[in-house]
Amino acid sequence: MCGIVGYIGKQKASAIILEGLKRLEYRGYDSTGIAVQQDRRFEVAKKIGRVDGLIKATSAQKIPGFSGIGHTRWATHGGVTDANAHPHVSSDGKIALIHNGVIENYASIKKFLLTKGYTFQSETDTEVLCNLIAYHYQKEPVPAEGSRFLESVRKTLRHVQGTYGIAVMCGDCAAEIVAARKGSPLILGVGDGEYMLASDVSAIISRTQNVVYLKDGELVHITAQGFGITTLEAEDVSPVVDKITWNIADAELGGYAHFMEKEIFEQPTALENTMRGRFSEDGSTAQFGGLNISAVDLRQVDRVHLLACGSAWHACLVTEHLIERFARLPVEVDYASEFRYRNMPLGSNTLFFTISQSGETIDTLAGMREAKRKGYKVLAVSNVVGSTIAREADGGVYQHVGPEIGVASTKAFTSQILIGAMLSLYLGRMRDMSFSEGVEVVNALKGTPDLVRKVLEQAPRIREIAKRFAHYHDFLFLGRLSLFPVALEGALKLKEISYIHAEGYPAAEMKHGPIALISENCPSVFFVPSGEMFNKVVSSMQEIKARKGKIIAIATANCDLPAGLADEVITIPECHESVLPVVATVPVQLLSYYIAVELNRDVDKPRNLAKSVTVE
Amino acid sequence: MCGIVGYIGKQKASAIILEGLKRLEYRGYDSTGIAVQQDRRFEVAKKIGRVDGLIKATSAQKIPGFSGIGHTRWATHGGVTDANAHPHVSSDGKIALIHNGVIENYASIKKFLLTKGYTFQSETDTEVLCNLIAYHYQKEPVPAEGSRFLESVRKTLRHVQGTYGIAVMCGDCAAEIVAARKGSPLILGVGDGEYMLASDVSAIISRTQNVVYLKDGELVHITAQGFGITTLEAEDVSPVVDKITWNIADAELGGYAHFMEKEIFEQPTALENTMRGRFSEDGSTAQFGGLNISAVDLRQVDRVHLLACGSAWHACLVTEHLIERFARLPVEVDYASEFRYRNMPLGSNTLFFTISQSGETIDTLAGMREAKRKGYKVLAVSNVVGSTIAREADGGVYQHVGPEIGVASTKAFTSQILIGAMLSLYLGRMRDMSFSEGVEVVNALKGTPDLVRKVLEQAPRIREIAKRFAHYHDFLFLGRLSLFPVALEGALKLKEISYIHAEGYPAAEMKHGPIALISENCPSVFFVPSGEMFNKVVSSMQEIKARKGKIIAIATANCDLPAGLADEVITIPECHESVLPVVATVPVQLLSYYIAVELNRDVDKPRNLAKSVTVE
Repeated sequence: MCGIVGYIGKQKASAIILEGLKRLEYRGYDSTGIAVQQDRRFEVAKKIGRVDGLIKATSAQKIPGFSGIGHTRWATHGGVTDANAHPHVSSDGKIALIHNGVIENYASIKKFLLTKGYTFQSETDTEVLCNLIAYHYQKEPVPAEGSRFLESVRKTLRHVQGTYGIAVMCGDCAAEIVAARKGSPLILGVGDGEYMLASDVSAIISRTQNVVYLKDGELVHITAQGFGITTLEAEDVSPVVDKITWNIADAELGGYAHFMEKEIFEQPTALENTMRGRFSEDGSTAQFGGLNISAVDLRQVDRVHLLACGSAWHACLVTEHLIERFARLPVEVDYASEFRYRNMPLGSNTLFFTISQSGETIDTLAGMREAKRKGYKVLAVSNVVGSTIAREADGGVYQHVGPEIGVASTKAFTSQILIGAMLSLYLGRMRDMSFSEGVEVVNALKGTPDLVRKVLEQAPRIREIAKRFAHYHDFLFLGRLSLFPVALEGALKLKEISYIHAEGYPAAEMKHGPIALISENCPSVFFVPSGEMFNKVVSSMQEIKARKGKIIAIATANCDLPAGLADEVITIPECHESVLPVVATVPVQLLSYYIAVELNRDVDKPRNLAKSVTVE
Repeated sequence: MCGIVGYIGKQKASAIILEGLKRLEYRGYDSTGIAVQQDRRFEVAKKIGRVDGLIKATSAQKIPGFSGIGHTRWATHGGVTDANAHPHVSSDGKIALIHNGVIENYASIKKFLLTKGYTFQSETDTEVLCNLIAYHYQKEPVPAEGSRFLESVRKTLRHVQGTYGIAVMCGDCAAEIVAARKGSPLILGVGDGEYMLASDVSAIISRTQNVVYLKDGELVHITAQGFGITTLEAEDVSPVVDKITWNIADAELGGYAHFMEKEIFEQPTALENTMRGRFSEDGSTAQFGGLNISAVDLRQVDRVHLLACGSAWHACLVTEHLIERFARLPVEVDYASEFRYRNMPLGSNTLFFTISQSGETIDTLAGMREAKRKGYKVLAVSNVVGSTIAREADGGVYQHVGPEIGVASTKAFTSQILIGAMLSLYLGRMRDMSFSEGVEVVNALKGTPDLVRKVLEQAPRIREIAKRFAHYHDFLFLGRLSLFPVALEGALKLKEISYIHAEGYPAAEMKHGPIALISENCPSVFFVPSGEMFNKVVSSMQEIKARKGKIIAIATANCDLPAGLADEVITIPECHESVLPVVATVPVQLLSYYIAVELNRDVDKPRNLAKSVTVE
């Protein structure tokens, strides 16, 4: 959410920053902007809309200079306007700044600055931050050693409440950037005679694989000669340089029309990577390298609490079913944003798990910190190595599915529920699950990639169905037990990328109100597995059919659907209950994707959204 | 769901049955029908649509005869057609039947009956039941004593799987009805030289206040001379005649345009009735007459599990917050329909509560039975004295708000959350809540009716807002903590009676996907209480505003909303947290009601719905 890029080196900064912004665009795309330092002033270009629009409409690409900052915005305070776009420059022209996050006490600071003669061109909290740095910079005495510029940023950040990832330039200095973070991600790329700043690695991967992950409360001061990291309390920090394992191909389309399409079709490989090396030698359970919690301690756990947002919250709901089924441990799932403020009574042997693809979701991070503050162990499932949530958790499981660029989560979601199944197996094998049951589940999990491949083969047929259903304005998605969260996820996908109002419900709950929406203009997508729930789901379908509702059934191959009940049937292979939610997800991903394509939506960058939500 | 009426007496049956059907129409209104016995044959009239339509299109009103049955249908098996409407008559003309419920093994029975020469005019499971009774009737030897007709019904019911409330007539007999129930409600009214059967008391209250509540597995055999009750196993049952405390005015409009409007405005009185006599003499806690569970046992409870469907499920979510807040007991809420099949691990000191206005909701009943089967105590909150759930629960609390006729729940919902607050207080005062805190909560609860009156005074203004917003096709309802379930309830109300696609979310969760729906064409309704969440909710509003989303804010009087942030503000009085969810519900009830009126919807009988959902 909001993307930050910075560059200091020997190349033309504007070209490198614009390339980085394009790769970060999935983080926010309401507006975009760039500021390059030249002599003692800033050349600024900014505009609502995408990076390509900025390049076309302005001279952004032609700006010379060797240091600069750039930004893609997801609006929080103030509408989507050119004036509200970043970078912002202080009214005295000394300071340029880009910002990701929310400054909560901006109103009182603005009042103060107005009395000091500072003026404001925008409605943003960011411009307030920028002018406050300028104010402190003007007041700051020239220090015997150290940097007056750095000190003014430090002093400012001590006064603000809220969250930020910022990169700041000072017109008085030669190529220099001060950057800092609290609650918003920021990494420093250490290249060959050059330095880059970015919100995530995809912006810098084409130039260097060496990165330093900044921590909350740290500032980095970069010049052409080197960099130094200090804390808000001015203590020195020894930097740790990590090596990124992705490569540039992971962040490119490679022949697909959209990243979402690429990531849907990558799922068999992605799921193989998620599982690699994670089954015991005897083939009866899962194993994880980084849980950092002993078998003795795990054995004491009598309850599991799961926290997440969005698609990851749906993954938690699936995991709830699987843990309760395989480990017979009671599980509670909370919206991370609500958990943080609910102050609910909790048991003493509760284990927390959080799930976040980016590892930077601020609501999830805040929920996790609340649980840690109360003395609970928190494990994290995340796709981004070195992300804040991964670092702050007591331990966890990396997804290893490579970067997910499409804003609507696909491969990260299925990988999360696969990890949920593996964790359930692991916890179950510590409890009542027998060796042979464990072997059965392991074999089922290992077969998942091939089952997903079989579903993907049906893509052309699903595309045809999507064409027939793309013109409806409302959908219901209906499933039961572990497929209820998959129904929620299907509805969310469709909502996110097609803007069609789709809603998920437990299939039987539909008749307690939502059925009022049903008419020939509101189709339903039903998940129909064979087995104990089959007859009940068929009854729900009949209630819809009696009211002329159109039905798309996603049904397992061997179930005996009454003829004519569904208007369209998408068959998924018969599979083990541990794998069913993964397999059932794929058709709704494809359905949503093809409907959005049919409607000419901007699939990878749907309106209003941003990957990795880093504001509360 | 589906309404059943039967009559045997000295009056013209058709007039009495049609009047009863009108009063039951809120239970289902896909189609309606009547059968009156004359000599040895049945006069049948049936039609899709409402009772008034039946009267206009057929000679139903003119049929002479002194015994008959009538039905309003909510379709489950088979579409809404004249042929599928009840009553059904067996293909040999001997048996006429009305049925509420679902026969699960109808397909195999139908196959059998076809081999025996029976034919079918409809797609319903009901006609199968009807022909099976005829089959057994033909085969049944004439008994030495007892009734061949009664025995044929008993034998049939032993063969069917599923749920039913039925009333059956036999062409060979003089005025006789056999009725039976399993899972669907059925009551016998004992009048002055006449008997009535009905799904609920509203159908018979104008003729008698003396009723017998039939139990699952019981059959009643009614003739002009009297009635007898037996079980499926042919054992005699001694009937208990109860007295109804409602009167006919409770079931009539009394000057309001709709029952929903009447019931919204009745809320101050309804809430007073809910609280009457339920506070301790020292004014520090609540008291309940019928919990049937000792203080010692309640003291052992370490967890509460709530089960319900629809609006009552939202009431459970509110109650969850209040119990966790006041009693510091962890609470879990489940969809009753899902709980039944989830087989989740449960603790040993868990107390179950179910909430159901009608006390007949089959999903809730089934969930409750599952909990009881596992040996848990289950308490019930219900509005209908003698209802199945109330009878089968170990104890409970009656709502005492009088009959709720509008299909969309209003006064029953606010009464349920008020009871939730009272229970939370009661459990809290058994634990860590002090005397003075208890007094504070009691005083707050006692003030609720007056606070609701204040909100109702704003009805004209809310009506104006409704007019301006009635033409939108999509809405989001957003709230946090105890107001998140109120947001769900607001969205459900609008969906149910206006068919506008409205969806509720926790306010902060909205940005994790659903915000893609936001544009100038999708307004949001925000709940904005003063206090700790105020700034967070305002931030969410700003994110919507930045994307041109229109906002209706339901805000407490003393909160300091930034000017221009909301397009419309509906003010609710500042109030105690125990009362806030009740008070905040009223504006969204009014908003939904006036929007539906503006759109000329059939407010009290919205399409596809039925009061009291008695099929799975």
